[in-house]
Amino acid sequence: MINVALLGFGRIGQMHARNINKNKNLKLLYVYEKIEKLGKNAQKLYNCNFERNSNKIFSDEKVDIIFISSPTNTHIKFIEEGIRYKKTIFCEKPLDLNIKKIIKTLKKVKKNKPKIQLGFNRRYDPGHHSIKKDLENNKIGQLEKIIITSRDPAPPSKSYLKSSGGIFRDMMIHDFDLCRYYLKNDEINEISSSASSFEPFYKKIKDYELATVTMKSKKGVICVITNSRHCSFGYDQRVELFGKKGMLISGNQKNNATELFSSNQSHSQKPFLNFFIERYKEAYHLQLNELVSLHKKRIKPRSTFEDGYLALKIANAALKSLVQKRLIKLK
Amino acid sequence: MINVALLGFGRIGQMHARNINKNKNLKLLYVYEKIEKLGKNAQKLYNCNFERNSNKIFSDEKVDIIFISSPTNTHIKFIEEGIRYKKTIFCEKPLDLNIKKIIKTLKKVKKNKPKIQLGFNRRYDPGHHSIKKDLENNKIGQLEKIIITSRDPAPPSKSYLKSSGGIFRDMMIHDFDLCRYYLKNDEINEISSSASSFEPFYKKIKDYELATVTMKSKKGVICVITNSRHCSFGYDQRVELFGKKGMLISGNQKNNATELFSSNQSHSQKPFLNFFIERYKEAYHLQLNELVSLHKKRIKPRSTFEDGYLALKIANAALKSLVQKRLIKLK
Amino acid sequence: MINVALLGFGRIGQMHARNINKNKNLKLLYVYEKIEKLGKNAQKLYNCNFERNSNKIFSDEKVDIIFISSPTNTHIKFIEEGIRYKKTIFCEKPLDLNIKKIIKTLKKVKKNKPKIQLGFNRRYDPGHHSIKKDLENNKIGQLEKIIITSRDPAPPSKSYLKSSGGIFRDMMIHDFDLCRYYLKNDEINEISSSASSFEPFYKKIKDYELATVTMKSKKGVICVITNSRHCSFGYDQRVELFGKKGMLISGNQKNNATELFSSNQSHSQKPFLNFFIERYKEAYHLQLNELVSLHKKRIKPRSTFEDGYLALKIANAALKSLVQKRLIKLK
Amino acid sequence: MINVALLGFGRIGQMHARNINKNKNLKLLYVYEKIEKLGKNAQKLYNCNFERNSNKIFSDEKVDIIFISSPTNTHIKFIEEGIRYKKTIFCEKPLDLNIKKIIKTLKKVKKNKPKIQLGFNRRYDPGHHSIKKDLENNKIGQLEKIIITSRDPAPPSKSYLKSSGGIFRDMMIHDFDLCRYYLKNDEINEISSSASSFEPFYKKIKDYELATVTMKSKKGVICVITNSRHCSFGYDQRVELFGKKGMLISGNQKNNATELFSSNQSHSQKPFLNFFIERYKEAYHLQLNELVSLHKKRIKPRSTFEDGYLALKIANAALKSLVQKRLIKLK
Repeated sequence: MINVALLGFGRIGQMHARNINKNKNLKLLYVYEKIEKLGKNAQKLYNCNFERNSNKIFSDEKVDIIFISSPTNTHIKFIEEGIRYKKTIFCEKPLDLNIKKIIKTLKKVKKNKPKIQLGFNRRYDPGHHSIKKDLENNKIGQLEKIIITSRDPAPPSKSYLKSSGGIFRDMMIHDFDLCRYYLKNDEINEISSSASSFEPFYKKIKDYELATVTMKSKKGVICVITNSRHCSFGYDQRVELFGKKGMLISGNQKNNATELFSSNQSHSQKPFLNFFIERYKEAYHLQLNELVSLHKKRIKPRSTFEDGYLALKIANAALKSLVQKRLIKLK
Repeated sequence: MINVALLGFGRIGQMHARNINKNKNLKLLYVYEKIEKLGKNAQKLYNCNFERNSNKIFSDEKVDIIFISSPTNTHIKFIEEGIRYKKTIFCEKPLDLNIKKIIKTLKKVKKNKPKIQLGFNRRYDPGHHSIKKDLENNKIGQLEKIIITSRDPAPPSKSYLKSSGGIFRDMMIHDFDLCRYYLKNDEINEISSSASSFEPFYKKIKDYELATVTMKSKKGVICVITNSRHCSFGYDQRVELFGKKGMLISGNQKNNATELFSSNQSHSQKPFLNFFIERYKEAYHLQLNELVSLHKKRIKPRSTFEDGYLALKIANAALKSLVQKRLIKLK
Repeated sequence: MINVALLGFGRIGQMHARNINKNKNLKLLYVYEKIEKLGKNAQKLYNCNFERNSNKIFSDEKVDIIFISSPTNTHIKFIEEGIRYKKTIFCEKPLDLNIKKIIKTLKKVKKNKPKIQLGFNRRYDPGHHSIKKDLENNKIGQLEKIIITSRDPAPPSKSYLKSSGGIFRDMMIHDFDLCRYYLKNDEINEISSSASSFEPFYKKIKDYELATVTMKSKKGVICVITNSRHCSFGYDQRVELFGKKGMLISGNQKNNATELFSSNQSHSQKPFLNFFIERYKEAYHLQLNELVSLHKKRIKPRSTFEDGYLALKIANAALKSLVQKRLIKLK
Repeated sequence: MINVALLGFGRIGQMHARNINKNKNLKLLYVYEKIEKLGKNAQKLYNCNFERNSNKIFSDEKVDIIFISSPTNTHIKFIEEGIRYKKTIFCEKPLDLNIKKIIKTLKKVKKNKPKIQLGFNRRYDPGHHSIKKDLENNKIGQLEKIIITSRDPAPPSKSYLKSSGGIFRDMMIHDFDLCRYYLKNDEINEISSSASSFEPFYKKIKDYELATVTMKSKKGVICVITNSRHCSFGYDQRVELFGKKGMLISGNQKNNATELFSSNQSHSQKPFLNFFIERYKEAYHLQLNELVSLHKKRIKPRSTFEDGYLALKIANAALKSLVQKRLIKLK
């Protein structure tokens, strides 16, 4: 059994705990959590140790994997501790909101080569991954355009939004990374952004409800990402790859392939799956399996620390484009 | 210009008149119609002769095409007249409700070889025809099963229903013919029927609201036809061809490829096209073009007198199966 | 923990073992299996007891649930033993091929009221169940027609086919049951069958490759079931409920919502899921959860012993209709 | 009969001639065309006058409608002549490539109020128009985002491309106008562009193969337009309207609703319709009917001279954004 210490037992941490608990290779040994009530709940649910002193966890030799789903501003600190104690590390996105901190750690990562996997779940989605394979198998020829639509069913809490880092670094970062996944050895070169809000709250916190970013890669591939903090018909997650010889689409999954026909409509389907826990269920499962392989066999993970760094770099450029009202060149 | 005499200016006759009028090769010379008001209306609309004496029409040498859309019990008489006067003939389905009359005329048809086209419009539908071509191009291998769904949006008038000849000879006859179209050189061998009514009216007139017929061809192809006299979501017209290596579907056409997504549904489309005039618009156009070619060049029409005879033979067997509650073998 | 004894560790038994093993309420205590190699494999995989004497299993008080996935001809014997020892029982379909044996046991079931669940997995499928709820919530008004398409991707082994009981009792029994599920308090009254084979092997064993059955309920609902032993594009599982006011469809699930567009096609999707283990994965999960509830709380299962009996009765009538070439009335 | 003089008998002019000829309210009286061979062909096909002196046409009192489909640089001149002679005018897009010329004429249009209709065919498409009505009927609440995909199946000839005015003024102008159609009383305020080419030819002529433009309206609606000069799977024409309460899509029409299922795919449809003549067939028909109404009853056309001016203004801003690599504010 591979022993896991889960840092952070919030919404996403709770989901990870359930998945870790179901995985027959993994044992949930510790949960680290600042909020006592949550931590005790974890202890009860999974019969694991609830620990509020992270040093004890890192220094416990039985701990194999440090699984980081704590607040963003603790990620880098825990990753550095993980590297020091030679643990296998999983870290949720984003790495941090401060890119300088990330660059410092990146040097250590390059030097020490820890086993580390980033939480870009979309890379593990069977649909999004299937069209990547089809792209690489030349089903559509030269890639020319990537169009990603990503809409959350409803915004997170206002308190979360205030400290989220903004729509580009909190939400669209997934889509920046996904573009990079399809671009492979090509890199984003130019970026320009547009954003808008209809709910007055977003203006107050200097964030946005809707955003669209257009990017161009070195080879000339145009990438268009469109985000919304709300979506009345569910979690809308679509990727379109347009190429010289064809097009690939990875669309929205449904629970049921059911349709209703009546006097005023036909082919009416149920709304989309509600949110990421349902939509990326299989992705989280595959991500965790890869983490097991990473721990056992030091494979190259689909999603690396450097991917986390580069996605944030793009997110920062997107924000800069919005503020400066111009196209930003990435170096 | 090719001169057309249209016999019968009821609902379907009026549609044919519009199509004849639009066709640049055809001129509507006569309309024959028992109901004076309808006939005068035709005269006004198309600046044609309204004639109540059919002899004058047949004996007019200027008339090239006899276009029969009068009541069913007049079809055979007009066909025979058409043969005698060496006219090119179009006749709406069904040929007659009395198969003995048809057999007599069939002999004359075989002897005189008139230019005659039957009104089995589905054979001319681009979708239904496209899957026939794909079938013949071996896209699905050996044909094993034909499944046809055909539902009218609403029943015809009660007075029409009373003299329609019943669901098998009036409505399903199209689907019997369509099966034969796909079976090509194979023929229907066995047949068994089931029918049901929820509206009490149908029982009074010894007809049915819903019917399903299962047939087997000499080569073993199973054909399933399902009909309904009503359909709340429009005119439902589907064909499924199942083969050793694949399946072909010809589905429902829409006016628009529009979809609505909202809090309780996704991908909701508009209802189907209302009825045959809209759904088979293109088919009627192609059918008329073929009639022009038949007149000019004596091509073999897709839909012949013999097809009309064989479809009625199956319809009669379907009714017999229902009454005798057993499988009927066709000779 | 609820202790389970699994009888039979063939293909379907192995799947059930995996599901039982994953279910946190259940412990796999025994596997009973005639083939030693299979049994030892089970023992190794699940750290359970491999037992070839069924008496020891039934008489062990620690065993709570008898889970029957052994060959069909052993089902009734094990059910009777389960009743005698007051175990909670799950039994795979069909109950038996001999309806007289079933009727005898039915009496005991009615008298002793054991906790027993039948393995009609389709009743537990989220899609098929969702349209049942929509039907009962009057989304389509009065039900008038049920159309079920069920095609296996490939036939079972020839040796299995020889003793399977034939396409009606082995395969279509699922669809007979599913019709009954939608008909609810209505019952099948009339039945007529058609069948065909293209592979010569089926004729040798007096079975069929393709079959279509048309049934009529007491209230007049027409049910059409179409089965095929092979399907080149995967496991084809569709239900269509047609009603006075609309239509509900439960279609084929896919792993991915991906589409390919290229010079000769558009909207091309991947083939269907391969077979029942993938397609009804969620159904098996929900079925097992219901078994846990049945054991704990004596709820009424969705699928009962009597459902198993009535489905076989219809299957027998279907076969009789085929042989006697006539419509069969069910009493 | 309303007499039409068609100016220009190139590819699009030939299509208009066919449509005018079919319309029972219109008579094609003149064709004006520089290329003698084309003009003589028109004369033969439609039995109309072939005239190379445009003055004769404008001064002929029998001419009711001036239908302009001649090269772009002649549009303004002919419109001005049409105004002078009080003709009803139709003009193909774009009005001109020089916005100053358009502004001059706009003043005359405002003063003289001629009956003039612009050739923005998409406004007349039943699908694109249907979602506009649904939007205005509040089916999706407050409009927040418009996403338009428009891809030509293949680029026009190189000689055409050289003088086309570039992708924004030649091709995307349709989509700028369509955004304005949905925005209604809201107006485009900000614009930024991105473009790319994979074929070297485009660089030579300082044009682009692919382009994406993001715009923001005064009310905050974000509009994203994505164009490509080629598309291997046909003419790709899609509109997505995203609102507070839902989403509307107007997708690609097909000739047939046929699907192929085989061992390596399911639901494979035919490629899209080839190009605008097929795709917007119904739109051209409705556009012409509106022109008849405009001539007879001075209705307000869906597409006006001012719409032509405002779309070009946006196209120019899009180009400016591309050159200056920054967001452009429209006054």
